[in-house]
Amino acid sequence: MLKLYIGNKNYSSWSMRPWVLLKQAGIGFEEVMVRFGADPFSANSSFKQAVLAVSPGGRVPVLVDDGFAVWDTLAIAEYLAEKFPEKKLWPQDARARARARSVCAEMHSGFGALRGACPMNIEASLPETGAIVWRDQPAVRNDVQRIVTMWTELLEQHKGPLLFGEFTIADAYFAPVCMRLKTYGLSVPGHITDYVSRVCALPGVKAWIEDSLAEKDFVDADEPYRMAR
Amino acid sequence: MLKLYIGNKNYSSWSMRPWVLLKQAGIGFEEVMVRFGADPFSANSSFKQAVLAVSPGGRVPVLVDDGFAVWDTLAIAEYLAEKFPEKKLWPQDARARARARSVCAEMHSGFGALRGACPMNIEASLPETGAIVWRDQPAVRNDVQRIVTMWTELLEQHKGPLLFGEFTIADAYFAPVCMRLKTYGLSVPGHITDYVSRVCALPGVKAWIEDSLAEKDFVDADEPYRMAR
Repeated sequence: MLKLYIGNKNYSSWSMRPWVLLKQAGIGFEEVMVRFGADPFSANSSFKQAVLAVSPGGRVPVLVDDGFAVWDTLAIAEYLAEKFPEKKLWPQDARARARARSVCAEMHSGFGALRGACPMNIEASLPETGAIVWRDQPAVRNDVQRIVTMWTELLEQHKGPLLFGEFTIADAYFAPVCMRLKTYGLSVPGHITDYVSRVCALPGVKAWIEDSLAEKDFVDADEPYRMAR
Repeated sequence: MLKLYIGNKNYSSWSMRPWVLLKQAGIGFEEVMVRFGADPFSANSSFKQAVLAVSPGGRVPVLVDDGFAVWDTLAIAEYLAEKFPEKKLWPQDARARARARSVCAEMHSGFGALRGACPMNIEASLPETGAIVWRDQPAVRNDVQRIVTMWTELLEQHKGPLLFGEFTIADAYFAPVCMRLKTYGLSVPGHITDYVSRVCALPGVKAWIEDSLAEKDFVDADEPYRMAR
């Protein structure tokens, strides 16, 4: 049985990606929740110690397959795509697959301004914060503009409903961006809002959102904009 | 013919990876050098405009195959691995391949402290700067410690000479880290220095180093520690 180690569902955008991928693709797995706790990033925290026990990088998500650890989201996605070819997790066409890998790798290392200013916080509604971020941070506007251009091109080229037509790793990869656009009420065109709605309606994404709403585990380190929930 | 768009060889660590990969694997390609120039990261710079003409992310490296752009280093590596299966760019064993993808993805999104404090600068020798960074920045020491642990395990497990035995994408991925360890004289055990020497002696890496030494194109934005060369 595959085991997926994840952090808090309300906050852990990296954990969301492979969880949604597995769920949406109908691949059975056991979820192991490692709560962030009070000081998740310090070397001696219970979070770090628990993750280090299964993966030397000390970060979630980690997929463990029969005792073998695969870490980092993109490597987990590739591992699942190889292990379950019948699930067609990447696009089948070679160029579409290359393009999907380009946009996922771009997400993997980029969009730092958006990620820094608008951390994932699914249950929160922070449009006032979003408006101030939008007004003051051109780098965030640039990140969102790049997302809008990218999604627009992919949706047009592959004729939707998702980025490469049917569900692929790319939609799982950008699901946390959809959450951020909603939480912070960031300004995007109507066809992008429609895509966000379609992503939120995917059973795998819906299940994650429901779990994150039920979680009720407030983490100071992930709440730059609130004192409580 | 494959075309690879790259930045200055002395500084562009991301460009180095696919260039070394292609060269070391003996895959023919045309190099297109886009010089960083005075203000490479501003939206209107000649660098940005030249890269945006071939890739919407506006970053190097970009691989163009018969008019089709593949961007972001990890996506380029996967594209080449698929296109040239006979070159065995990833390890052949499924678990070794998964592990190679984990460490490359970890590099792709991580080691921010090392990358920030010790930017690649092949022709420079900055051991005094390195000593101060090492003294003052525990996050850099942590990054180097993680590299040492990772490489030690892989070299032991696969019995060297390279991370997964023979040359793979993983060695190309960590070649710029080898450059940083040398330029800044960072403290690592002897068996790690030996691995760095073996990487530097690979014909693909050697060719990149020679080109970067011949470049003589000083870029202020990439020189936090020097006024001239």
